Amino acid sequence: MSGVLINGIASDYVSAQDRGLHYGDGLFETIACSGTRAQFIDEHLDRMQHGARVLGIAFPDRQLILDDIGSLLNNSSIASVIKLILTRGSGKRGYRPQHEHVATRICMLGAWPEYIDRWKRDGITARMCKTPVSVNAGFAGLKTLNRLENVLAAGELGTDVDEGIMMDADGQVIEGTMSNLFAVIDDSLVTPDLSRCGIAGIMREQIIDIAKTSAMKIEIRNTGRDELMSASELFVCNSLIGVCAVRQLEQRVYTADTITRTIKTKLHRRMQADAKAAA
Amino acid sequence: MSGVLINGIASDYVSAQDRGLHYGDGLFETIACSGTRAQFIDEHLDRMQHGARVLGIAFPDRQLILDDIGSLLNNSSIASVIKLILTRGSGKRGYRPQHEHVATRICMLGAWPEYIDRWKRDGITARMCKTPVSVNAGFAGLKTLNRLENVLAAGELGTDVDEGIMMDADGQVIEGTMSNLFAVIDDSLVTPDLSRCGIAGIMREQIIDIAKTSAMKIEIRNTGRDELMSASELFVCNSLIGVCAVRQLEQRVYTADTITRTIKTKLHRRMQADAKAAA
Repeated sequence: MSGVLINGIASDYVSAQDRGLHYGDGLFETIACSGTRAQFIDEHLDRMQHGARVLGIAFPDRQLILDDIGSLLNNSSIASVIKLILTRGSGKRGYRPQHEHVATRICMLGAWPEYIDRWKRDGITARMCKTPVSVNAGFAGLKTLNRLENVLAAGELGTDVDEGIMMDADGQVIEGTMSNLFAVIDDSLVTPDLSRCGIAGIMREQIIDIAKTSAMKIEIRNTGRDELMSASELFVCNSLIGVCAVRQLEQRVYTADTITRTIKTKLHRRMQADAKAAA
Repeated sequence: MSGVLINGIASDYVSAQDRGLHYGDGLFETIACSGTRAQFIDEHLDRMQHGARVLGIAFPDRQLILDDIGSLLNNSSIASVIKLILTRGSGKRGYRPQHEHVATRICMLGAWPEYIDRWKRDGITARMCKTPVSVNAGFAGLKTLNRLENVLAAGELGTDVDEGIMMDADGQVIEGTMSNLFAVIDDSLVTPDLSRCGIAGIMREQIIDIAKTSAMKIEIRNTGRDELMSASELFVCNSLIGVCAVRQLEQRVYTADTITRTIKTKLHRRMQADAKAAA
């Protein structure tokens, strides 16, 4: 199960002059798909459009992207992953963005990762990473193509560890290498503030919204490693894994999961509602 | 004057799966060429090899890169620019680097930029940029493909401004959007410390070495905007422009250039020595 569309045309190659390659000058989205349905597609496109506005990249007509996705999913009946990439395109040399740049739209279909079932069933083990998250308020929260820090952090994980927790240079916990993070501290959900760095995930937004609309206590604030260790529950989330309990972080083992399971159930209901709305 | 070699083979396209595109998972070098000669080629390849070691990317046989460059420059008799890109290559999805990744080597020939003659002759005007440099000691100094901050900073410049000076979030001056920066303060050369962020340029290294070997005073340390404004001279450097005097930064006009000219002369002599050694 694969396939790539570049600006709507089937091709496995992009221009060697593309600014996505040269500078990471672009954005991406990773979208869970069930059959022909792309989950939370409006939220993903909203986020990419917001990022494009911040970076000054012309966002394409949404229908073009939806057509790309529809064409790749075709009459699929299984779970799969769509990755969207939007770059500032090719053009004159140099960092300076030019008016004549025309965005490159890449839509890729991939197989549903096999690790996810195990993660969902058993929870995951995690460790603290040494590679820090870059602090840059200029594009904090955006899912840009500048992801070298995530690559290096993920490179620290041994084969027996599922996910790594990243901190900024000041020791503030920010996120997982490929997920956002929530801790349960004194019966309150705590998730790191991402106004200076990190990626504000679609699932993170859903969970924050779930907490707010169901009168659960939620705090978006700085938190450190010690606080994670003393939390009663810990879970990570992203668009593919949904919510996954962290069973172990370094030496600390987490046995409670009451609030994690509540969030999981509520999120599942939202996904079903999203599916019904799309149907 | 153009041409692209991907792993030694003429092609204008790279795989849409390349990690250079997906994550900025790679490095680059921009090399000034005079006829068939690539300037400071050893220093450029040394820096790229060092960066590859830090990122855990297998560095190709140097002769392959030299052959790529030789093939593109062929029997050129004019000034041109070679851009080298090295990525971790394509492979399995996800941030985690895999052993099976095989690096992608890209060698591109481009025309000598027309603005450079004017910069060298007249000096340049500069402004302070709002976009901060990302702080990440994990790959500080390396010329990685994660360059979105330079793109956004360069996007702040109007058409009447040549270069922008970037600071970190704490207000420490780091570099130009496409250059390194030197100030003359109390007859001492001062250039920002790049141990937390920024790109340590080849020309910057040459100038630091020139200062040390000719007993000029040189300080590699933190410096702020106010100190730049009170400096007697200011200049920027990179592999293409060599040394360029900053004539104006915001409202401040710099008229002195004695030390800038001395550095320029000494650098010119080094370039000639580099050319002779290669001949």
